[in-house]
Amino acid sequence: MTPQNAFYAQSGGVTAVINVSACAVIETAHRHPDKIGKVYAGRNGIVGALTEDLIDTSRESDAAIAALRHTPGAAFGSCRYKLKSLEENRAQYERLIEVFRAHNIGCFFYNGGNDSADTCHKVSQLSEAMGFPIRAIHIPKTVDNDLPVTDCCPGYASAAKYVALSTLEASMDVASMSATSTKVFVFEVMGRHAGWIAAAGGMASTSERPVPIVILFPEVPFDQDAFLARVKAEVSKHGYCSVVVSEGVRRADGKFLADAGYTDAFGHTQLGGVAPVVARMIYGELGLRTHWAVADYLQRSARHIASHTDVEHAYAVGRAAVELAIAGGNALMVTIERSADDPYRWEIGSAPLEEIANREKHMPADFITADGFGITDACRRYLQPLIRGEDYPPFAEDGLPRYARLQNAPVEKILNTPFEP
Amino acid sequence: MTPQNAFYAQSGGVTAVINVSACAVIETAHRHPDKIGKVYAGRNGIVGALTEDLIDTSRESDAAIAALRHTPGAAFGSCRYKLKSLEENRAQYERLIEVFRAHNIGCFFYNGGNDSADTCHKVSQLSEAMGFPIRAIHIPKTVDNDLPVTDCCPGYASAAKYVALSTLEASMDVASMSATSTKVFVFEVMGRHAGWIAAAGGMASTSERPVPIVILFPEVPFDQDAFLARVKAEVSKHGYCSVVVSEGVRRADGKFLADAGYTDAFGHTQLGGVAPVVARMIYGELGLRTHWAVADYLQRSARHIASHTDVEHAYAVGRAAVELAIAGGNALMVTIERSADDPYRWEIGSAPLEEIANREKHMPADFITADGFGITDACRRYLQPLIRGEDYPPFAEDGLPRYARLQNAPVEKILNTPFEP
Repeated sequence: MTPQNAFYAQSGGVTAVINVSACAVIETAHRHPDKIGKVYAGRNGIVGALTEDLIDTSRESDAAIAALRHTPGAAFGSCRYKLKSLEENRAQYERLIEVFRAHNIGCFFYNGGNDSADTCHKVSQLSEAMGFPIRAIHIPKTVDNDLPVTDCCPGYASAAKYVALSTLEASMDVASMSATSTKVFVFEVMGRHAGWIAAAGGMASTSERPVPIVILFPEVPFDQDAFLARVKAEVSKHGYCSVVVSEGVRRADGKFLADAGYTDAFGHTQLGGVAPVVARMIYGELGLRTHWAVADYLQRSARHIASHTDVEHAYAVGRAAVELAIAGGNALMVTIERSADDPYRWEIGSAPLEEIANREKHMPADFITADGFGITDACRRYLQPLIRGEDYPPFAEDGLPRYARLQNAPVEKILNTPFEP
Repeated sequence: MTPQNAFYAQSGGVTAVINVSACAVIETAHRHPDKIGKVYAGRNGIVGALTEDLIDTSRESDAAIAALRHTPGAAFGSCRYKLKSLEENRAQYERLIEVFRAHNIGCFFYNGGNDSADTCHKVSQLSEAMGFPIRAIHIPKTVDNDLPVTDCCPGYASAAKYVALSTLEASMDVASMSATSTKVFVFEVMGRHAGWIAAAGGMASTSERPVPIVILFPEVPFDQDAFLARVKAEVSKHGYCSVVVSEGVRRADGKFLADAGYTDAFGHTQLGGVAPVVARMIYGELGLRTHWAVADYLQRSARHIASHTDVEHAYAVGRAAVELAIAGGNALMVTIERSADDPYRWEIGSAPLEEIANREKHMPADFITADGFGITDACRRYLQPLIRGEDYPPFAEDGLPRYARLQNAPVEKILNTPFEP
């Protein structure tokens, strides 16, 4: 009997290592030809499943699949598309099952964050109710590191390494310039609700290599007076300082700091970019010259400086997802379980999706210093093994990495019925 | 007879490889103990010479000096401090000579860009006139790549590699998201007057790896209609595109695009950040979702992804400066001369400072495509060897590079007279 096929999709914001998990899913499935037929990927995530736009990964060479291990972005396309609730749009879920049934798909691997975990959970429930059981396994992925239960989320550690390294390099720059020019460098990083990425900026400073760094977390209401006093004190002491600011920092009234009442020539409110707001505040109130940078996509796509630990995690969760499904697991998320900080030891586990979906993990209170502007030793012990180790992609003669480009050949449609996602 | 000492200073904005030149100066001087005594560095550039705040590099270990080869920033501190003209402030130049005379300094190595070349030139002229001849050699350094005569400037190639790589990685990100979310990524890079750094963004696209990239050069007056039409066309064709924009892009009336008439809540004009201006324009006029990043210091301090060619250049110009001085050269800048593109061949030359000072090299017209939004094959042939090759720093157990930290021990003052620079 021909084994059933598997479906794999990438969801939400990409990471430097989401393709590592894709690589692991495909390579692990290949090692079990008696259990899993082909691996079909959704073109642009779950949208590809809804529209029956599937990619036949078996048409790629082994080398191309292996190269996913060092390739950023989402090789099959991702999407920002949240399925509605079952009550609101049951037709979406029924369509998924219809497509899976048509293509003899028995495993559903969904590679994403919170919203995706919720989708994965619903698919697992509904498929059973509809008499077409699918083993639905969620593969964690998010630079935000805000999934519960798992010790960390693949993708986060590489963003953290990028932010720690960039903060160090830029701090060396501003330190060099501070005698006669710029005194403060402001660096905006991602994190709408949780300060995990901003926390990584603190790793640029160690006891052997002290760097004055002030961190603004979304978890800590912004106190302008305390912040400016701190910046002033650091500059007085060191001659310069760096500020790492989460995009999601809010004032005590809950208003985003980035929404600072700036308007354009037409009177429209100007949103976006908390770094220039902070930089202007420092210059305006303290008279200190500033420079500012916004990392945006660079922090989640910098595969060239990915964390080796992260790459290992991302591969392990993809492989484990396939193994769990083969063992009959369903409605689970693969987790990373830490057993020791130093030397770092971890293993793979799993957790029921009902414990995961729609829950956000913020920074623990004991990871942020009492003044709200730094990270504690507990946070350092957590972060240290995550950002350790490099995993360089191969570079070509053109001076840039040899990132994989797949053919992404379509699977022939069977239903061929229109569906508007 | 004890040989005279040498003075070395770092000037202007730092680069990922300015310390490589410092390393070369010190190591080369050490190999000629019969010709050069100690190498004294100016603390915070030329300001250190004016205030008699010199650093004794002989107090550093050989290992620490060698580690400068992989360390960004300016190890001795840089400065933004332009000496006035001889006519305006002859006292500054006389003070320099006074300090050099007191510390028996016979060579003046100045590591910087255009302004510094001018200073170096004046020092060479004045010292002779004052009966204290110093061999003044300029060591080129600028991410802006705008020094004349030399084929390229150390520091530029690493910034170019960073920008090409970041453009590639971010483009893979936006390509992944474009089906349901962000369609355009806008990346702001340095370049007030010359588009050399922005041009590097074009290297992310090759015939084998086509990436839709629209470049905005300071050399090309901004044409909003043509630009938006181009972005729209690229998104229609590819589903997404990336825009690389020089900070110095101006409208036809000469006004900086970044100065877009935005005001804050207090009515103050908001300057800085052309990326958000461009992103808002694309969203406002075309309705396309955008993301934007500003690289700022990251692009000139990213030693972790420095170009190997650049590191070789930076070392070679530092070594050649010392060799030129030993051979009696004066009022010269070391240059890089290219003899072939592929395979790349180059050698070290020199040029009189009077040909260098206060001249800016812009992008040649035949490096920019006729539409003004891209780079030509001639530009690619120029850039290709510059960004080729990696030169990774060693990383430590903390997941970050082992960047050098010098003691920077002061030379005992001899004059000990106050001087307000």
